[in-house]
Amino acid sequence: MNNLSLSGIIPPLPTPFDDNQDFAPARLQENIRRLSDFKLAGFLVLGSNGELAHLADREIPAVYEAAREAISGPRLMLAGVGAQSTRRTIANARAAAAAGADAVLVLNPSYYKGQMSREALRAHYHAVAEAATVPVILYNMPAATGLDMDAETVVAIAGHENIIGIKDSGGNVVKLGEIRRNTPPDFQILAGSAGFLLPALSVGAVGGILALANIAPQQCLDLFHHFQAGDLPAARDMQIRLIPVNTAVTAKWGVPGLKAALDLLGLYGGPPRAPLLPAGPDIRRQLSELMEIHLQKTGRNES
Amino acid sequence: MNNLSLSGIIPPLPTPFDDNQDFAPARLQENIRRLSDFKLAGFLVLGSNGELAHLADREIPAVYEAAREAISGPRLMLAGVGAQSTRRTIANARAAAAAGADAVLVLNPSYYKGQMSREALRAHYHAVAEAATVPVILYNMPAATGLDMDAETVVAIAGHENIIGIKDSGGNVVKLGEIRRNTPPDFQILAGSAGFLLPALSVGAVGGILALANIAPQQCLDLFHHFQAGDLPAARDMQIRLIPVNTAVTAKWGVPGLKAALDLLGLYGGPPRAPLLPAGPDIRRQLSELMEIHLQKTGRNES
Amino acid sequence: MNNLSLSGIIPPLPTPFDDNQDFAPARLQENIRRLSDFKLAGFLVLGSNGELAHLADREIPAVYEAAREAISGPRLMLAGVGAQSTRRTIANARAAAAAGADAVLVLNPSYYKGQMSREALRAHYHAVAEAATVPVILYNMPAATGLDMDAETVVAIAGHENIIGIKDSGGNVVKLGEIRRNTPPDFQILAGSAGFLLPALSVGAVGGILALANIAPQQCLDLFHHFQAGDLPAARDMQIRLIPVNTAVTAKWGVPGLKAALDLLGLYGGPPRAPLLPAGPDIRRQLSELMEIHLQKTGRNES
Amino acid sequence: MNNLSLSGIIPPLPTPFDDNQDFAPARLQENIRRLSDFKLAGFLVLGSNGELAHLADREIPAVYEAAREAISGPRLMLAGVGAQSTRRTIANARAAAAAGADAVLVLNPSYYKGQMSREALRAHYHAVAEAATVPVILYNMPAATGLDMDAETVVAIAGHENIIGIKDSGGNVVKLGEIRRNTPPDFQILAGSAGFLLPALSVGAVGGILALANIAPQQCLDLFHHFQAGDLPAARDMQIRLIPVNTAVTAKWGVPGLKAALDLLGLYGGPPRAPLLPAGPDIRRQLSELMEIHLQKTGRNES
Repeated sequence: MNNLSLSGIIPPLPTPFDDNQDFAPARLQENIRRLSDFKLAGFLVLGSNGELAHLADREIPAVYEAAREAISGPRLMLAGVGAQSTRRTIANARAAAAAGADAVLVLNPSYYKGQMSREALRAHYHAVAEAATVPVILYNMPAATGLDMDAETVVAIAGHENIIGIKDSGGNVVKLGEIRRNTPPDFQILAGSAGFLLPALSVGAVGGILALANIAPQQCLDLFHHFQAGDLPAARDMQIRLIPVNTAVTAKWGVPGLKAALDLLGLYGGPPRAPLLPAGPDIRRQLSELMEIHLQKTGRNES
Repeated sequence: MNNLSLSGIIPPLPTPFDDNQDFAPARLQENIRRLSDFKLAGFLVLGSNGELAHLADREIPAVYEAAREAISGPRLMLAGVGAQSTRRTIANARAAAAAGADAVLVLNPSYYKGQMSREALRAHYHAVAEAATVPVILYNMPAATGLDMDAETVVAIAGHENIIGIKDSGGNVVKLGEIRRNTPPDFQILAGSAGFLLPALSVGAVGGILALANIAPQQCLDLFHHFQAGDLPAARDMQIRLIPVNTAVTAKWGVPGLKAALDLLGLYGGPPRAPLLPAGPDIRRQLSELMEIHLQKTGRNES
Repeated sequence: MNNLSLSGIIPPLPTPFDDNQDFAPARLQENIRRLSDFKLAGFLVLGSNGELAHLADREIPAVYEAAREAISGPRLMLAGVGAQSTRRTIANARAAAAAGADAVLVLNPSYYKGQMSREALRAHYHAVAEAATVPVILYNMPAATGLDMDAETVVAIAGHENIIGIKDSGGNVVKLGEIRRNTPPDFQILAGSAGFLLPALSVGAVGGILALANIAPQQCLDLFHHFQAGDLPAARDMQIRLIPVNTAVTAKWGVPGLKAALDLLGLYGGPPRAPLLPAGPDIRRQLSELMEIHLQKTGRNES
Repeated sequence: MNNLSLSGIIPPLPTPFDDNQDFAPARLQENIRRLSDFKLAGFLVLGSNGELAHLADREIPAVYEAAREAISGPRLMLAGVGAQSTRRTIANARAAAAAGADAVLVLNPSYYKGQMSREALRAHYHAVAEAATVPVILYNMPAATGLDMDAETVVAIAGHENIIGIKDSGGNVVKLGEIRRNTPPDFQILAGSAGFLLPALSVGAVGGILALANIAPQQCLDLFHHFQAGDLPAARDMQIRLIPVNTAVTAKWGVPGLKAALDLLGLYGGPPRAPLLPAGPDIRRQLSELMEIHLQKTGRNES
């Protein structure tokens, strides 16, 4: 199982909702097809940008299934499955595998932060890794969970043979280096944000799951390829250029911003689910300007 | 609706699970009957101590219904209903009301922390308050959510006529005073932990929803009654005496500690759901000693 | 030594500077004389509001001496002496004692936060307590230091016979209760802000060192006396009324706000030292309104 | 002035103290001479590792002077001068320039965190830059100050012509990229810790001021030269290898750890000043093992 390569650029797809905030599977599939024009390594459904936290239990399998239908060729399908309880996480992982996911991404539980010791987290992840029939990828996202798994915890968890990597959205590059140093070479590190893709690659990450790859896939790929080709100055220039738009659709305006950016590009963004508020006209105008200034120079952001 | 008095002491009941970690309704009902020997103002089901975060969507109504059957007399039934999405929160609130809850406790969504502006939180709470057929109580619990609603946010939300109070577990007494100053007199503040019950009462709280009230109900009631009677020295002595056991079953050992303490007292604690690990023998021994030292002096902690 | 009573209300005096930002001793003495019309228990010089952090080593003794000349009758003179190094803290403590201070207030060192273990802090405080010829009061102020001494640390330090109490500005009332429970009865706790004076008194504090006592001394005294007389409703009303002005001259606008408020009341505020910026006209107008609304009702805030 | 190049590796020298914790100038000079065998770009005196925070006002010039005497050839002398007050910072900067420093490093004031607005920080830094007769380098060190200057603040400050760069010890590489994007090309970014040297270089840093360069100068230089030569795999391997020892002499054991490591290498470490506790035998043993495992492979860590 550990031979599954995660190397490359993977967009975490927003989950499209219609005007009633119900899941719109055809919109998801259309977005996937549009993004399939780019040499992306795969797609993630129901990550943080996919609003997994907003879906009812019964809605989840349908999203996995809709995505699977549309993902073609050699592209990976990764599925977000992390819930607060171990049993629900396992149930999601099984549904994802049944739908055809290639691997599952497991956000750590965090509600009972004070009790999430290294021992508790390891037991949780190993139980999921035992039960899952596809490989497991750890997911560390302190901005959402308020819990930042440290290097020792990740290393302790990474020993299980069905755990093949980590997506880290915290951006602590010292920690990434420490994880790289203390895990086997086939344990794969993925940057969780385009804001620090190049620094993460510099300490051994193999790619990234990047919200920005939904709206600037070619630029993200260019950065990655410049790095692979050893052209550091070009990689650095692209890294620095991408920060403002990336911040806009992540830390600053979040999922509503990302969905609005998709709308502006002619893909389907649509409304987020409440309590997220849709991006208003002022944010859309600012987003439009940011994208024009920072992305269009390269002429590659349209499919 | 605003005439519902929340004054007094209310235990947030742990949700009993059997050895397979499945809900054990008879155990919940037995605990309620045992605690009904005390002059408690009511019971909360499916709060943080009730592991709402660990229940599947379809399991939730059964807990409300089992609790309703067992709660008798004038005691209130409060139901925890807060989920990440507004629609799931409303669904839970309707199920709670259908089961006979007197009011619902709504923890703020927090997954998309960066987007939970005052405006977004107000819109969420007001949508829930509109849809709920019973009164709504806000719930601020930064140790779990990583998001601490400030006084201005609470005041902005509190303006809705179907929002009757707040349970605050953060313990910032300056904030409680500020909320007291800027909300109508019938907006009711509840301490969310026995660790600061007396300081909260001193700035205008009307009672508390206290994990400790599951295992030391009479001591919590004594503290409350000393305060009401104006006997501050007795209230202070009880406040100070209760801190170590309270810390043990909240910040230190959490729900597993609280469940173990129930076991030690002859009520039903049982296992928490994974990823929470059950309290081991060493913690149980320490808990036993703490309870003997700090609670038994008063001879009132047994039903 | 431990017989020194700290009970009551003590203002931490701002250090007056002239238009060149040089120390203006006559202004300090005038302020002390004006405030001596109130039944304050004493004065603190060179605390956080006294800008100790902004004074050169050689300027410090002169402030102690100027204050000593002006403080009359039974009122205590407390002197802030905490520096980053143990040796400088001791030098300041000796200068304060030489000038006639009754006790010294020692803020914990915090620059090397990661190394400030319980053991290091205890060694520091005990070295100061050994060297000082007057009693030592601990000072915990996490908003300035970024380091919050926990209850166990305070209890470990409090065992020295020349350490008689603590000023806590963090406002964690559970911690105050825990300190009260685990220290001898003659270890005296002082609230470090008027925002939580009543809650602190409720768990055993004996008084407060309150920035607000510079501009609303009578209201602070009234709150304290209501509590001592067992009139909790009156104490609570005063507590709640004082929060907005207190926040304005502490967390919100800090020392510049406090100095501007003194100017507005006819005492000497004057400029803070850079990098603190003086409060501009807009802040002064808001301060004036806040004081008119919240303080003048009682008609006691003028000397 | 802006032509001063900061490119390369610069150790922040610990300030040697004798057994009475008094400054030992000959020891400082000996360490400088020993380290001058390596192709370091210069030396920093009285940074965080130099315990500036522990020195009395009158002791500071002597350290600058002793360092200047010993620094030879083209190597830069940088001097830490940041104090809480603007006037003391300026006095230190003038003393440093008088002693012959090439540039001064200015840590931001942080005691009155709540008042350190972008405007206040800019006014402080520009006042220092006006008064200093040598170039100014910003210094962001949130682990010590509890205040993390954001990219917009740094950019706002960087506009002054006498401010030539920043040492950032926070390790937020997204912020470094944002600073790089929004400052002129001659504004120089320096990594403040060897733990993230390579990631910082990847987004445009020109070098680093690295505690580790005191004890592993050649390894730090090798990493830097691998990067400059475009040999990313070698740079990455060295980056990952250096993390454990770097963590040991920074976040984990701090200045006492760094001084103990110097002792172990035959340079002069000596005791830190109280309240820092000297590293005990157990830490020294662990340090020795860490250095043997991670540094000696390369055979270059001895002068």
